[in-house]
Amino acid sequence: MTPLHDPALHSFASDNYSGAHPEVIQALADANGGHVASYGADPYTARFSELVEQHFGAGSAVYPVLTGTGANVAALQALVPRWGAVICASTSHIYTDEGGAPERLGGLKLLSVPTPDGKLTPDLIDRQAYGWGDQQRPQPLAVSITQTTEMGTAYSVSEIRAITQHAHSLGMTVHLDGARIANAAASTGATLQQMTRDAGVDAVSFGGTKNGLLFGESVVSLSDAGLEGITYIRKMDAQLPSKMRFVSAQFVALLEGDLWLRSAQHANALALRVRDALVDLPGVTITQAVEANAVFVVLPKPIIETVRAEHRFYDWNRETGEVRLMCSFDTTTDDVDSLVASIRRELGVLS
Amino acid sequence: MTPLHDPALHSFASDNYSGAHPEVIQALADANGGHVASYGADPYTARFSELVEQHFGAGSAVYPVLTGTGANVAALQALVPRWGAVICASTSHIYTDEGGAPERLGGLKLLSVPTPDGKLTPDLIDRQAYGWGDQQRPQPLAVSITQTTEMGTAYSVSEIRAITQHAHSLGMTVHLDGARIANAAASTGATLQQMTRDAGVDAVSFGGTKNGLLFGESVVSLSDAGLEGITYIRKMDAQLPSKMRFVSAQFVALLEGDLWLRSAQHANALALRVRDALVDLPGVTITQAVEANAVFVVLPKPIIETVRAEHRFYDWNRETGEVRLMCSFDTTTDDVDSLVASIRRELGVLS
Amino acid sequence: MTPLHDPALHSFASDNYSGAHPEVIQALADANGGHVASYGADPYTARFSELVEQHFGAGSAVYPVLTGTGANVAALQALVPRWGAVICASTSHIYTDEGGAPERLGGLKLLSVPTPDGKLTPDLIDRQAYGWGDQQRPQPLAVSITQTTEMGTAYSVSEIRAITQHAHSLGMTVHLDGARIANAAASTGATLQQMTRDAGVDAVSFGGTKNGLLFGESVVSLSDAGLEGITYIRKMDAQLPSKMRFVSAQFVALLEGDLWLRSAQHANALALRVRDALVDLPGVTITQAVEANAVFVVLPKPIIETVRAEHRFYDWNRETGEVRLMCSFDTTTDDVDSLVASIRRELGVLS
Amino acid sequence: MTPLHDPALHSFASDNYSGAHPEVIQALADANGGHVASYGADPYTARFSELVEQHFGAGSAVYPVLTGTGANVAALQALVPRWGAVICASTSHIYTDEGGAPERLGGLKLLSVPTPDGKLTPDLIDRQAYGWGDQQRPQPLAVSITQTTEMGTAYSVSEIRAITQHAHSLGMTVHLDGARIANAAASTGATLQQMTRDAGVDAVSFGGTKNGLLFGESVVSLSDAGLEGITYIRKMDAQLPSKMRFVSAQFVALLEGDLWLRSAQHANALALRVRDALVDLPGVTITQAVEANAVFVVLPKPIIETVRAEHRFYDWNRETGEVRLMCSFDTTTDDVDSLVASIRRELGVLS
Repeated sequence: MTPLHDPALHSFASDNYSGAHPEVIQALADANGGHVASYGADPYTARFSELVEQHFGAGSAVYPVLTGTGANVAALQALVPRWGAVICASTSHIYTDEGGAPERLGGLKLLSVPTPDGKLTPDLIDRQAYGWGDQQRPQPLAVSITQTTEMGTAYSVSEIRAITQHAHSLGMTVHLDGARIANAAASTGATLQQMTRDAGVDAVSFGGTKNGLLFGESVVSLSDAGLEGITYIRKMDAQLPSKMRFVSAQFVALLEGDLWLRSAQHANALALRVRDALVDLPGVTITQAVEANAVFVVLPKPIIETVRAEHRFYDWNRETGEVRLMCSFDTTTDDVDSLVASIRRELGVLS
Repeated sequence: MTPLHDPALHSFASDNYSGAHPEVIQALADANGGHVASYGADPYTARFSELVEQHFGAGSAVYPVLTGTGANVAALQALVPRWGAVICASTSHIYTDEGGAPERLGGLKLLSVPTPDGKLTPDLIDRQAYGWGDQQRPQPLAVSITQTTEMGTAYSVSEIRAITQHAHSLGMTVHLDGARIANAAASTGATLQQMTRDAGVDAVSFGGTKNGLLFGESVVSLSDAGLEGITYIRKMDAQLPSKMRFVSAQFVALLEGDLWLRSAQHANALALRVRDALVDLPGVTITQAVEANAVFVVLPKPIIETVRAEHRFYDWNRETGEVRLMCSFDTTTDDVDSLVASIRRELGVLS
Repeated sequence: MTPLHDPALHSFASDNYSGAHPEVIQALADANGGHVASYGADPYTARFSELVEQHFGAGSAVYPVLTGTGANVAALQALVPRWGAVICASTSHIYTDEGGAPERLGGLKLLSVPTPDGKLTPDLIDRQAYGWGDQQRPQPLAVSITQTTEMGTAYSVSEIRAITQHAHSLGMTVHLDGARIANAAASTGATLQQMTRDAGVDAVSFGGTKNGLLFGESVVSLSDAGLEGITYIRKMDAQLPSKMRFVSAQFVALLEGDLWLRSAQHANALALRVRDALVDLPGVTITQAVEANAVFVVLPKPIIETVRAEHRFYDWNRETGEVRLMCSFDTTTDDVDSLVASIRRELGVLS
Repeated sequence: MTPLHDPALHSFASDNYSGAHPEVIQALADANGGHVASYGADPYTARFSELVEQHFGAGSAVYPVLTGTGANVAALQALVPRWGAVICASTSHIYTDEGGAPERLGGLKLLSVPTPDGKLTPDLIDRQAYGWGDQQRPQPLAVSITQTTEMGTAYSVSEIRAITQHAHSLGMTVHLDGARIANAAASTGATLQQMTRDAGVDAVSFGGTKNGLLFGESVVSLSDAGLEGITYIRKMDAQLPSKMRFVSAQFVALLEGDLWLRSAQHANALALRVRDALVDLPGVTITQAVEANAVFVVLPKPIIETVRAEHRFYDWNRETGEVRLMCSFDTTTDDVDSLVASIRRELGVLS
């Protein structure tokens, strides 16, 4: 097939504008050929399962799926019964960016809480954690947090533990949307196990697409009780890959060595490079702590479109001029420096 | 990544036991690198759209998704309103093999009809096509047929046209589950457009996984009115690929040349080779017309397990000893001849 | 309010064409006035609960709802998890007459089995009872039977016990749709407890509307484990009556004395009177055992419309001329004799 | 049946603690007896339809249902396609008090907005009214307002018109949850038609239970286009009353004369009596305009439980001591005076 795009073109729009890591493409070729059982009974899925146990702790179990929305919905459906509701931040992906899939596909009621930085706390959870036994209130039976958050911030292990202890004491389980969990490991230095199983998390949406896979996400069960019904839920949510080896092989490529961490460290480092270059510029305000691969920043409105024409990125808040600058595993220092140069030029700041 | 399987091992279990065609893997590599817009605004999806218009007719539109179940559910949700019911064969994939996804994910009521060969007809449709205006009956507003069917049979263009004319005259739209539509083209000689748009079909689940993709399916809208809401439905069904270029590029590899047809012709030819080798053997009965890549055959029960130990396949009916032998794009004549030799040996038939 | 209908007019169309028993209207007046807690914390619901324990056995618990469809869906949702499927007869109300509510409102997959008389048996159940652990098959986790059936037949206690033992041995619970359970008690002589709790049934949709209530149905939990989440499910299914005292008071009127049984015995007796008068007439064929308040009978097609113009009833099978003649608590012997006279006259049979 | 409660006992807990108006009970008796067609083809439903056209305007159509939650969900499902989202106040009944039924039963995504007084405005709507065409955002296609609101406030006709004009200009329809619409008519002096059809509302949940019915609600279609599919939706939501005459007859009793308005005027007047008696008491703060039958008031916390022991009512905000005092069609001046006396006594205010 003739390539149809310019492989030299990068942007700051989203970590899903990037493609796949070359090692991931190679893994697909390595896993190809011959016949292996479909729907999960293949050696790549077995290997992925072993690696998940290594990274998340013995007894963890993994269920490959196809989309992050699918992973989140399936995990939450397995965590709560039909009448369960899920407490989440009002900026959470499940609440705002999934087309209503949790409600419509999952039959889940979401109880949202505004937060300053995308992070829940025991106190914030308490704003929705009430009404058990009240037959007219959807029963809060799970808490969902995102690591790193949609605002580019990261929970520390102790913050997660505080949440899980609080939730468990109230009879609620805890789900972690880990679409960018690798970035959190890179940022906090904690291992995947420390951030999840050891911190009391019950289930994780363990993402790969935003960290260099073609596509492919997974649900990881962390509690010894497991996730009842998850295999049936995965199928009824249209999330069961038939040629599962090709999801699993990509994850094996991520996890066998340090590709997962290396890629995230790189993306995070470049986000810090963006922040550091912008933080002292006049008229520019960094609005969130940079603890992952995103920089949230208010730019003077007159310069936004000119800069965007050279380096694509997304608006976050059009009223204030806040934009999101996202780095990826393949963002380069040149990309960053070129972006910064454009901003400086438009701001009239001499180098 | 170190390969974990034997690429020389083939079986007759399913066309999703096979991997991806090497040209498909190459297409992924070609489409990789650089940044392109996510969620469909990329050049590979644009190219896929052009190719769909070429193959299905001008005005057709394609919506890439991730699983066949997802394609079927999303297409049917777009074709019928909340209160619509779908008439289908009782052997159809949507009715028996999708974990209840059409009902649970899609909120669809399925009205099933037994068939001898997996094919609906106007008369069979009429067994469920009644009760419009009856507020207690789910309203039959669509018919879903599978091409080729789950029984390895193929509709002729005139059979499809008879169904669509009948359905349309009753106010029903027609969906075609084309997980193996390439095999139908190979078998009947009809083009994709002749079997679908020209025959009056309104929407197709256009499959790729069973024809040499890693994974990747699509919904094709054929009516000029289009499929209202399909983009929102795709997302709320967790079927929106973020890095859509990688679904589309695989389809481009299939459709730009004749890979799609060549692969299907090959698989079909080998199924005929299986049939021809078995049809006259004592104690062996071919139970369905071989019009695609599957052979349904009753074998003497005492030989089944021994043969299966050498050449994996699935039971279809344990009571009668009917099994399904499925060929794939990468099945070889040696594979077939080895299978046949095993069966002959177990039957005690001299070569 | 001025009455707008002719209270002398009766028909054989359905037991929901009749109104409410006068004792039921009186009960509403008795329960009226003053303020009592809503949503179930009222003395009439407490009394109804006591009566349910008397009639169904100690430990039974009742949850008033508003419609039979609502009772069935809520009970089944409480019996099976999200991934559960329900085995039922293909003539069952849940499968054919509820507008797809079990699938759409309940997210339930129904696995239907054709039966000759509306009754399941262990053997018939086995036609769908398989595939546990198969992630692509909706998991059969409950059986739903109807007592009396939609075909006017009744299960004996031993038939029910055979079903529950078989179902339980396979890990499935048993739901009984008792929209006409009073007719079964009248027909078989078994008590409500003998037919349900003692026979191993786990949950009952205990109906009132078809036995002389205005409206009002209920879910009865019979297993010691109870029906987890039923109060939340009832609300999320829009089945929680706010002024619950008025559902409960009607049931108290039925159950405190023998009104429930008396009314059903009367309706059943008149159905037998219909049968006995028709059974030997030329060209007339009774098609089902008359074990409740319905007579299924084939009439010569030429006479059907003339008879129907005098005595409304419903077609069951237009091809064969089978019709359903339904008696109610307020059907009179004169009603029956007048119907029979019409049929005899049209048949040309002298009295 | 022996009455089990004290008909002299009143409270201020909720308008569903009260029973039915005696004229409503009489209407049930009047509509009883004989056989009439079920599921809506009866003369009482025809009469109710006529009355709805008189009160809401020619071309209006009514669909009786059983619960307010059911009315809201069915109306909204008819107003928006599968992918539609509904903008509502964060205090709205559909968002907070229906057990997640809109999401789970209806597959509806709700987009909520905080309000000071339960009332939406065009500006508040705009906080959620965006993102049309964005495939990842649930599409805002309807606005739902409550009249009178859950906070006891009423929209003026011009406020409603401003909302409908704004919504329509954005391609959104407008639903009005009229569980207490009679109280709004009593409060504002506007007719039902002026507040709804003439003000541009598309569909109403027209309530009866909170205004003296046993139970019984309805969906009223106001737009000339009607509510597509509403009859099927009603059934699949388990909201189709079989003996519909008994829902309709109650509404006929309300609407034929002025019972509907008289009852609401009475309840509202007593709420004003409560307010007037409390407004100047020390330590007491009325928190919302009293424009219906509810008074929201902050009482000194030390007196709340003592007063409640004599006159039951509900907390609204335990932190601030805000409580809700609700009057009903059968609340008496003595009830109010006794409540006020208790509060004054506990406050130490001499008469």
